[in-house]
Amino acid sequence: MIIVMRHSSTDEEIQAVVDRLDERGFGAHVSRGAERTVIGAIGAQEAEKAALADSLKRLPGVEQVVPILKPYKIVSRESHPEAGRVRFGSAEIGGPKVAMIAGPCTIENREMLLETAQAVKAAGASVLRGGAFKPRTSPYDFQGLGEEGLQYLAEAREATGLPILTEARDVQHIEPVARIADAIQIGARNMQNYEVLRAAGQSGKPVLLKRNFSATVEEWLKAAEYIAASGNLDIVLCERGIRTFESAMRNTLDLSAVYVAKRETYLPVVVDPSHATGDFRAVPPMALAAIAAGADGLLIEVHPNPVEALCDGPQQLTPKRFEGLMDEVRKVAEAVGREA
Amino acid sequence: MIIVMRHSSTDEEIQAVVDRLDERGFGAHVSRGAERTVIGAIGAQEAEKAALADSLKRLPGVEQVVPILKPYKIVSRESHPEAGRVRFGSAEIGGPKVAMIAGPCTIENREMLLETAQAVKAAGASVLRGGAFKPRTSPYDFQGLGEEGLQYLAEAREATGLPILTEARDVQHIEPVARIADAIQIGARNMQNYEVLRAAGQSGKPVLLKRNFSATVEEWLKAAEYIAASGNLDIVLCERGIRTFESAMRNTLDLSAVYVAKRETYLPVVVDPSHATGDFRAVPPMALAAIAAGADGLLIEVHPNPVEALCDGPQQLTPKRFEGLMDEVRKVAEAVGREA
Amino acid sequence: MIIVMRHSSTDEEIQAVVDRLDERGFGAHVSRGAERTVIGAIGAQEAEKAALADSLKRLPGVEQVVPILKPYKIVSRESHPEAGRVRFGSAEIGGPKVAMIAGPCTIENREMLLETAQAVKAAGASVLRGGAFKPRTSPYDFQGLGEEGLQYLAEAREATGLPILTEARDVQHIEPVARIADAIQIGARNMQNYEVLRAAGQSGKPVLLKRNFSATVEEWLKAAEYIAASGNLDIVLCERGIRTFESAMRNTLDLSAVYVAKRETYLPVVVDPSHATGDFRAVPPMALAAIAAGADGLLIEVHPNPVEALCDGPQQLTPKRFEGLMDEVRKVAEAVGREA
Amino acid sequence: MIIVMRHSSTDEEIQAVVDRLDERGFGAHVSRGAERTVIGAIGAQEAEKAALADSLKRLPGVEQVVPILKPYKIVSRESHPEAGRVRFGSAEIGGPKVAMIAGPCTIENREMLLETAQAVKAAGASVLRGGAFKPRTSPYDFQGLGEEGLQYLAEAREATGLPILTEARDVQHIEPVARIADAIQIGARNMQNYEVLRAAGQSGKPVLLKRNFSATVEEWLKAAEYIAASGNLDIVLCERGIRTFESAMRNTLDLSAVYVAKRETYLPVVVDPSHATGDFRAVPPMALAAIAAGADGLLIEVHPNPVEALCDGPQQLTPKRFEGLMDEVRKVAEAVGREA
Repeated sequence: MIIVMRHSSTDEEIQAVVDRLDERGFGAHVSRGAERTVIGAIGAQEAEKAALADSLKRLPGVEQVVPILKPYKIVSRESHPEAGRVRFGSAEIGGPKVAMIAGPCTIENREMLLETAQAVKAAGASVLRGGAFKPRTSPYDFQGLGEEGLQYLAEAREATGLPILTEARDVQHIEPVARIADAIQIGARNMQNYEVLRAAGQSGKPVLLKRNFSATVEEWLKAAEYIAASGNLDIVLCERGIRTFESAMRNTLDLSAVYVAKRETYLPVVVDPSHATGDFRAVPPMALAAIAAGADGLLIEVHPNPVEALCDGPQQLTPKRFEGLMDEVRKVAEAVGREA
Repeated sequence: MIIVMRHSSTDEEIQAVVDRLDERGFGAHVSRGAERTVIGAIGAQEAEKAALADSLKRLPGVEQVVPILKPYKIVSRESHPEAGRVRFGSAEIGGPKVAMIAGPCTIENREMLLETAQAVKAAGASVLRGGAFKPRTSPYDFQGLGEEGLQYLAEAREATGLPILTEARDVQHIEPVARIADAIQIGARNMQNYEVLRAAGQSGKPVLLKRNFSATVEEWLKAAEYIAASGNLDIVLCERGIRTFESAMRNTLDLSAVYVAKRETYLPVVVDPSHATGDFRAVPPMALAAIAAGADGLLIEVHPNPVEALCDGPQQLTPKRFEGLMDEVRKVAEAVGREA
Repeated sequence: MIIVMRHSSTDEEIQAVVDRLDERGFGAHVSRGAERTVIGAIGAQEAEKAALADSLKRLPGVEQVVPILKPYKIVSRESHPEAGRVRFGSAEIGGPKVAMIAGPCTIENREMLLETAQAVKAAGASVLRGGAFKPRTSPYDFQGLGEEGLQYLAEAREATGLPILTEARDVQHIEPVARIADAIQIGARNMQNYEVLRAAGQSGKPVLLKRNFSATVEEWLKAAEYIAASGNLDIVLCERGIRTFESAMRNTLDLSAVYVAKRETYLPVVVDPSHATGDFRAVPPMALAAIAAGADGLLIEVHPNPVEALCDGPQQLTPKRFEGLMDEVRKVAEAVGREA
Repeated sequence: MIIVMRHSSTDEEIQAVVDRLDERGFGAHVSRGAERTVIGAIGAQEAEKAALADSLKRLPGVEQVVPILKPYKIVSRESHPEAGRVRFGSAEIGGPKVAMIAGPCTIENREMLLETAQAVKAAGASVLRGGAFKPRTSPYDFQGLGEEGLQYLAEAREATGLPILTEARDVQHIEPVARIADAIQIGARNMQNYEVLRAAGQSGKPVLLKRNFSATVEEWLKAAEYIAASGNLDIVLCERGIRTFESAMRNTLDLSAVYVAKRETYLPVVVDPSHATGDFRAVPPMALAAIAAGADGLLIEVHPNPVEALCDGPQQLTPKRFEGLMDEVRKVAEAVGREA
């Protein structure tokens, strides 16, 4: 942490900063320049620094407080120079094989889930996804099958051999999801729900952490750090589009975030083009772009009959289109030295 | 809802849209123009329209589906032409008197809360605010006093006569908060947490609903509609800044949202310049601007010793500065035909 | 254009809208629903519609005016269902071969330009780019070699056979650039400079139109329409990143814009990952992602010695890295059924 | 400028940074911490720092380069601790009196300009504005009266005594505008057009500099610095809304920018609520908010018959509404210790 003093700051003001640092267990390194005096905080308890920075910003004569260290350490490349691999049951994310995680937005009933599971398995998917708990954005909307849906997922796994990923939307969902699923999804809206992050971190199951549509990459990685600090290093990041001024698609898919997240951390990164675009026609080009950008896998929504889907119809692929996409993904994966 | 067909759409495609509308209980009004055929959906079950729109978007030949009605009705000005007033205990929000809601970010202990409560009461505040449940954005951060904090709030109310507002951060907090506080705050992060909205809607206590920093005004009003649909019309909206490319302040305070929210709904609107700016020096000008823009009140963070605050130190006012702000607020309130 | 009347609108207000439409040469189609009366404007002079919409918005009782037609027609897929191809001299953009447009940010001197031209030619580039006119963002910055730079470009073309693309930054630059270059670049800052668009449209040379970093795709396509309406259909679009809240990279590369622009228009679309990211390390993954997303080419900044570059050093590739990128681009291009 | 080295940086890499600084005339102050080595660049040629920073970013082992000084100096409060006042003819901006700059978007003809000028003068405006040169966003749009419009402005000044402000949209407009008008407006689209900035800086007339709708406050102040560096200190800043994800109004008026610009510089700041909102109904509350936030004046579009306006009809006030607004502005100005 570096404290930049105002041009007009006095010796007393500079000393007050040094004293405050000392009081909190930090050394101070004062460097007086022609235009600004700069104070470097040295050493000690990283964990206290955010509160300390806040406190320093209130002191007279302080112009700005510049953090030098990134707000994530356990998940950083600095700590783990090698790219990591995470297992969702029998599937590996982060290895040479690109992971295809596919399934319906919502589990509407037993039949549609089994039908979709068989179809995506046949096409080459490696993980089955499906929503059991759904938010009700309107009092009239379908809210998911809950625990019943989890049972259908378990059946679908039995029938196809595909490991299953499903979302825990609340801290109470963590336990049932962790009991049945191979991996827990934390949705974009919960990316900074610290109770959910902690519970997922203590669940013993791998976690897929979606980026919130208005979170910076740094905030996203800080959320991953929170899970890691709770004892769980099996984390997969998932980019799903951010909110910008552009409204041609539902969100703006930020593929440079894949690059940044993989440069900064050892965690595998997958991409969800279905939610990013909200339009099944745009899913294939964005899926291929994600693989070319270095993503370790894709989350693709697949529904046997999207026109009748209870949620997110416009973005779900038919099983047939998903099969076509798999062929294209294989070619691009090979072109970048991977397989699918 | 209006369905715009592509230039190249066929008669069969147009008929398929009409059939689908009929199937869902809507009439169809087809208007064939030189450039586009446009189909108006007439009548019936509004509640089904979002799912219907999704379904229509998948049909061949459909270019776009344009909603005509706003996604909020109960809280709209159309339903309630008069501006509404909401009571937080003895305080009224939305009347001629501008409501000053003040207090610390977090209740750190009994003494600091009582001291702050006395100070803001003396300066002219009408409601006391203070956080009992706090998110832990780092495993090392202070997480609030919980139910103990609620007790201190009740004591402070007893001591000062000020009604109290505090945040429920989770569905489990709604019951204890509703039991003790005069009004329940739903924070920006929970603006689209439908379980929390519903529980607040059923709590019997008035609700202050903060706008999420990446929510459109329409989404914010839709969240208010959700609370209203759960049976609670005593809702106060709170603008607290949005995330944009500008980073000079923590967020960009969107005062035109005050205008839009008051034009579209009957709900009172207050503004939180403390969170919007993150800087105590910017709080007074933004507070005055909010009043001039038509806000019905302000949420101001006040702390007896901000340099030592456990959270949000940089944005909290000292009691003395709050007193100075009250004087300025009174003058601007009078200038726009109100009082404070 | 559809005019939605307020719930409370009167018959007189509705009639006033119909009269205004009639006065401007439009028919009106009034549809009275339970919740809203909707008026469709029929026929006639598209060109007048923006002014007409503005005028209608002021009339009492009007809630909103919804455009039905896109603000571009000449460049639309509707008018040209086939994807177009544009020639920059000997190079074709939009055909099966992905176009690699490479060269330095700025022409610093004759030698560096010739050296770079030879290197990118050897690596397989199809067009040479280089800036002759540069903005001076500070009074102390290098401002480009101007006409002298254009001469060096002509020499480099002679030496390598590569067609040349360079930017006209002002309406006065159009004539000299059009005289020498094979194609005129319109930079992001000039995307809505209508004098420059018109002059480029009348220049007789093909145009590469960069998207402004805060322009919607619709505004970008409208700018292309302006060039086309000035008589020039040889337009190539270039996506180069948009400004969002995310600051990990210089801009957020919006690859879904490639999809949207190609769906909406017949124009070829290329991508500039150098400006989008501002970081040479991020250029290769974003370049490959662009090709996988369907881009018809890339704009890549290459400099013989980026550490000493007079501008944009951090984002320029060395010739050696560019050569490596070409190999990767070839593989991904083939994977998506193209070549490079 | 501070250079932060990677955790893994070697002594050779650190030395290479020190050498590069030395080569460019800077001293280096190396501070080795437990987690990072930090190098402070000391002294000398500020002007070279941007290029130097770019060059340092390419050196191996460098993690980030952190600027310490603001990119504006001449216009900074540090250089001019007192708030400045700028004269537009007989009007003063930045003094106790809030400046009301009013007039039509475009000068449509002599009569309408004179009528509007008389009306705004009678209501209490201090400066007359009106557009002579207009951008043609469509080949069919009205493009302004050009020099003829300037003559009408001069006539209106003669008739009313109001000083006149009008926009130069291109470097060629600077001379005719400077010859006739009392102050030159640089529009949002030209905020970073350095030729226009320089020409305005050398024109000898005061300049009103609008913020681009996607510029940060820092970029805006840097543009003002460019004018100042060209020899002109008579600059007035104008906030007119920024582009965000929110689309309820045309732009998001950023009133905290008024606070930041006045804290950072000595320049007066005015606000244009007409362009920010695009809706005459929203102009009054945003105008009052601007004054309460500390703005030194307002730019208000006024048209005798907005329904028939050739441009921006929805946002222009009638003279009668402007008169009503003046009354309200006076009250709020007094409430914050000013007059109008």
